[in-house]
Amino acid sequence: MIITDSSDVHPAWLPPEALRAIGTRRTVVCGEGLLVDTVFAEVDRAATWYGGTARRAGGDPGLPAVDLVLALSCALPSPRPGPPPAESDPDGSSAAIDAVRAELGAAGAGPLGAEGFAVARHGAVTVVLADTPAGLLYGLFDLVRLGESGFGPAHPARVRRPAMARRMLDHWDNVDVHPVMGQVERGYAGGSIFWQAGRPRRDEARVTAYARLLAACGINAVSVNNVNVHATEARLLTERLDDVAEIADLLRPYGIRVHLAVTFAAPVVLGGLPTADPLDPAVRAWWAETTERVYARIPDFGGYLVKADSEGQPGPFSYGRDHADGANVLAEALAPGGGVVHWRAFVYNHRQDWRDRSTDRARAAFDHFSPLDGRFQDNVIVQVKHGPLDFQTREPVSPVIAAMPGTRLAVEFQVTQEYTGQQRHVCYLAPWWSEILRFAPRADDGATVAELAAGGGGLVAVSNVGDDEFWTGHPLAQANLYAFGRLAWDPELRPQAVLDEWIDLTFDPASCPDPELLRRTLHEIMDDSWRTYERYTAPLGVGFMVRPGHHYGPDVDGYEYTPWGTYHFADRDGVGVDRTRATGTGFTGQYPAPWSQVYESLDRCPDELLLFFHHVPYHHVLRSGSTVIQHIYDTHFDGVREVEAMCRRWEWLARLVDPAVYARVTERLTEQLRCAREWRDQVNAYFHRKSGVPDAHGRPLH
Amino acid sequence: MIITDSSDVHPAWLPPEALRAIGTRRTVVCGEGLLVDTVFAEVDRAATWYGGTARRAGGDPGLPAVDLVLALSCALPSPRPGPPPAESDPDGSSAAIDAVRAELGAAGAGPLGAEGFAVARHGAVTVVLADTPAGLLYGLFDLVRLGESGFGPAHPARVRRPAMARRMLDHWDNVDVHPVMGQVERGYAGGSIFWQAGRPRRDEARVTAYARLLAACGINAVSVNNVNVHATEARLLTERLDDVAEIADLLRPYGIRVHLAVTFAAPVVLGGLPTADPLDPAVRAWWAETTERVYARIPDFGGYLVKADSEGQPGPFSYGRDHADGANVLAEALAPGGGVVHWRAFVYNHRQDWRDRSTDRARAAFDHFSPLDGRFQDNVIVQVKHGPLDFQTREPVSPVIAAMPGTRLAVEFQVTQEYTGQQRHVCYLAPWWSEILRFAPRADDGATVAELAAGGGGLVAVSNVGDDEFWTGHPLAQANLYAFGRLAWDPELRPQAVLDEWIDLTFDPASCPDPELLRRTLHEIMDDSWRTYERYTAPLGVGFMVRPGHHYGPDVDGYEYTPWGTYHFADRDGVGVDRTRATGTGFTGQYPAPWSQVYESLDRCPDELLLFFHHVPYHHVLRSGSTVIQHIYDTHFDGVREVEAMCRRWEWLARLVDPAVYARVTERLTEQLRCAREWRDQVNAYFHRKSGVPDAHGRPLH
Repeated sequence: MIITDSSDVHPAWLPPEALRAIGTRRTVVCGEGLLVDTVFAEVDRAATWYGGTARRAGGDPGLPAVDLVLALSCALPSPRPGPPPAESDPDGSSAAIDAVRAELGAAGAGPLGAEGFAVARHGAVTVVLADTPAGLLYGLFDLVRLGESGFGPAHPARVRRPAMARRMLDHWDNVDVHPVMGQVERGYAGGSIFWQAGRPRRDEARVTAYARLLAACGINAVSVNNVNVHATEARLLTERLDDVAEIADLLRPYGIRVHLAVTFAAPVVLGGLPTADPLDPAVRAWWAETTERVYARIPDFGGYLVKADSEGQPGPFSYGRDHADGANVLAEALAPGGGVVHWRAFVYNHRQDWRDRSTDRARAAFDHFSPLDGRFQDNVIVQVKHGPLDFQTREPVSPVIAAMPGTRLAVEFQVTQEYTGQQRHVCYLAPWWSEILRFAPRADDGATVAELAAGGGGLVAVSNVGDDEFWTGHPLAQANLYAFGRLAWDPELRPQAVLDEWIDLTFDPASCPDPELLRRTLHEIMDDSWRTYERYTAPLGVGFMVRPGHHYGPDVDGYEYTPWGTYHFADRDGVGVDRTRATGTGFTGQYPAPWSQVYESLDRCPDELLLFFHHVPYHHVLRSGSTVIQHIYDTHFDGVREVEAMCRRWEWLARLVDPAVYARVTERLTEQLRCAREWRDQVNAYFHRKSGVPDAHGRPLH
Repeated sequence: MIITDSSDVHPAWLPPEALRAIGTRRTVVCGEGLLVDTVFAEVDRAATWYGGTARRAGGDPGLPAVDLVLALSCALPSPRPGPPPAESDPDGSSAAIDAVRAELGAAGAGPLGAEGFAVARHGAVTVVLADTPAGLLYGLFDLVRLGESGFGPAHPARVRRPAMARRMLDHWDNVDVHPVMGQVERGYAGGSIFWQAGRPRRDEARVTAYARLLAACGINAVSVNNVNVHATEARLLTERLDDVAEIADLLRPYGIRVHLAVTFAAPVVLGGLPTADPLDPAVRAWWAETTERVYARIPDFGGYLVKADSEGQPGPFSYGRDHADGANVLAEALAPGGGVVHWRAFVYNHRQDWRDRSTDRARAAFDHFSPLDGRFQDNVIVQVKHGPLDFQTREPVSPVIAAMPGTRLAVEFQVTQEYTGQQRHVCYLAPWWSEILRFAPRADDGATVAELAAGGGGLVAVSNVGDDEFWTGHPLAQANLYAFGRLAWDPELRPQAVLDEWIDLTFDPASCPDPELLRRTLHEIMDDSWRTYERYTAPLGVGFMVRPGHHYGPDVDGYEYTPWGTYHFADRDGVGVDRTRATGTGFTGQYPAPWSQVYESLDRCPDELLLFFHHVPYHHVLRSGSTVIQHIYDTHFDGVREVEAMCRRWEWLARLVDPAVYARVTERLTEQLRCAREWRDQVNAYFHRKSGVPDAHGRPLH
């Protein structure tokens, strides 16, 4: 049975079929609260679709035995030894709950925590237990992922708690349409779901559907406007706060708190003060009063997000203050309400002289922020891009992440594929994120990036969603959003396993004539698509080589002679950026051991980062055994061949997926193939013309 | 005495002082007609300013002797032998006129023609004679140029007739603000003087002042909208014709006819026809009827301007017709009203594959148009860009100009400096235009480009004027507009002499404390400024190397891998486009002898066009004795030094020119110097990295 939602928006990973296993059950929900109401509404709607039943605990006791119990532990009496008397437990739910609670107690599981839950199968009853309404909601969506397998043989309770307390999406959505950047800066999925041409969009169904999707993958915080805060957007903090509150009201039932990007100059541009100096008492008072008004209107407001002294945005440098001074004044204002300030570490000189090879943009965040370690208040989260540059296809992990033990750090990813195909190319980013999250930057404690983020400010990503009918332009790019949420919840998840979850939820294998072909083909297309993208674009970690401004498509010298600090220094002899301590910018010295040695060493540096750290001759032999120049040729030919294979494989799915999805993906693959060939030929021609080295296999280089 | 105009617009080359010599005289104007009224209004206003008198012939006979007579010959009785009796000629004007007429008759001067005039000094009376009101107007402005020297010792009559019958400016002004191109496409002087945000601007004072400036340099036709005709602009032909008529009414008193750029698809988009096929009878009828309505509203309407099958504009190719078919249907419609169609030859494939070296955009206009020679109706003017590409700093003369003896050709220049500094750089273009006009493309008849244009459709240029307070962004760029008009009138004029005229008119040497320093300095800054610009930008005729899209500033590879057909093919060994018949695209074969041989030959090809025609090694020795690579380095260092000298020289004029002009030019020179250094360093770095050749003088190449 196909059940279609009333909305004309693609259901993404929550089509009705995803709730079929729950909807056919007899369910009881125990507990009170807004998010418990959401849980009940979900199961109740699913039951309506699929013929099951759903009721709140304490209702009519004369019911048959239940299949599924979702219960808040605080809503239950203390467990007693032995089964409850049958007359007081006609549906069997109390017995099942008590058994699971006893099991958890015996195992010493401890509290489930603010968002954790346990799922168990006791006899013929599936039990989801949580200490909090949010935990129950996440438990529900865990059960959605399990599908029928959540109702199989009895098994002990599995406890799940999120690795990161905050799992956040930053929307770079403008309220006004920006003359250059449009409604969404770096948006590749149409307009904003929140704003339209200067006004709130007020598409409640869309925002609610979005909140539901986010909750189902674990996101619990959303910043609703662009970090480049223009004139209209600045006013969301004050006179247009109601617009923010409206969004908060729609996200709240799904456990998502609203954050707001604010301009550091707000005391001047909104408050009419003569200065925004963070040490000025009037400025502190203004932030305190303004923030108090925000909490009066939005009691669970998450906090501020600030891009300061970066790419033209105002910041504390204007007043001779540093970023700790700047962040702390906002943190102080947010503390009474329980909010945090996300303060971006993306600070660098974007008016660099390209002739000056001693200045290195990669150094900037560390140079600016590491001296401030320990100076930030506890509710300041320094938000660090995962790499030292800017969301390239391949970068080393930012040395800032290892360098500030006394500071709460959040690591920032970019789901919107600004430099990775802009949702016109298939580029499943979870393998890349997973590599980063598993990377251990410090020898001394072996802590991974995931652990450092979990112990600090969590994970943040730039959203990829817009008002596109498929949410993300490219239907397969939905998987990136899903995977980001899942990895933020559990960074140990394998990317292929996350993709399996996404496929099962999105494509309903039960109604697919050949679910195994579907699954295998999607894996073949997506699993390695990030590496494929890497192969046909900028080689060996050198980055950029994109068309300036919009950043789509190749332009090898596009940024080479610009003030943006993103160079490759290719000449007739070699290519790459010398960032060594010995002869270069010294950036390798920002890493602790062993990476400071590994990256410094031409022999030990990983191939995929070679040109990020070293300027080498074209005949330099890689660890792979190939020369740099032949590697460039080979990977570019390989990358295009892989896209050709993607296109062929996709055709196998013609009758297995929704025709609209099929058509959109087909259109995008056509463009991806065109663009990949353009990348291949431009990069190869550029390096052939420069190096004069022919391809070892005699292929055309132009 | 300084007299300021009421307008807040810069007076350009017609400040009140330019009319001082006339304004102090006792003047009589003989004749009737709209343009004679204009002549009278000019001398009358000048007399008001400077204490002279002005009257129409036939007025009060009791006046003192005149100093200046401006007379239409048709308004005079036939000359009689001997002086008129004093009682019938109290002011002496008749005697002076008769003497000049007799002299012209004796010299066999023949008719003065539609726009010609004679200026003579007879005793103490200056006489301007013309056969037509337009000729009288041009005679007046000739006298303005002469200033006091027009009232010196007696001299025989000098007869002046324009070399070109039509001297035209094309405004690439949009009615709506285009989302990418703005109000004026390739406009570097603010908004349009005709249009503003979708509406007519209706700044009558500005348009009248513009018409007066144009008449004073000889322009007699203006096309009022962009050749890329968008939706709103298309309607100027029909429902918004009144907007065009309003402009025509303002230009008419200065002898300027209005032309209109139309879309070839007009029968479809305006007429609702199913086709715009030029051979379809309904299409022909639509054009005929529509054009009849245009003439009913604007009786002296000049005609249509069409960019067809070019850069996305519609054209006859859509219907399997050729450009003669397309142009003739419009010509047929215009013939009854006496109008012409300017049909642009700028047709090429702008979706070229950069990998394909056999396709050559330079060939396109010749390949499309030369086979059509003889097929165009007599009121079709094929409008050819002066070079085969697109208004680069240096190009050969387009071979189309020599190839169509049976077609009326107009040669198109670009006053708006799209590729020559965009009115932020000083670049006096008259030397470049003069070179082109004096070029003789055919050995057989030795006819120059000027003669071929004069015998055909005249000269056309893309206007450089906007609503900027100085008209042209850069105040010194006014000289380009002035010089274009003057060269269209008389292509034999030396560029330095034209600059002298412009300086004398614009800067009023009589009130300047040091007019010789002013004149010498302006010559030093401007005379060679085009060659200076050439030196610091793209070398040896290779062209482009500009930032894609806006075309300002360097980007050596900016167009190298694009579909635009503008490549330099630089590799580690050499640079340039092989357009020879022997080994290249064969473009040299589009020229008649001797140029087909000269350009084909590596030894005979002029240095400044070498890379346009040949791909050569960096060590190739130029006719100058330098190698290509050292020439690149040398010219780029030289060019910047010359701009530095310009900047120093300009400072000498601090007290000699209007402070507002001084400030604006100073600001522009600062930007020119910054940009020239960027050009120098990027071009030198690019070729150094590619060639590996050091500078012979050890200067930094980056």
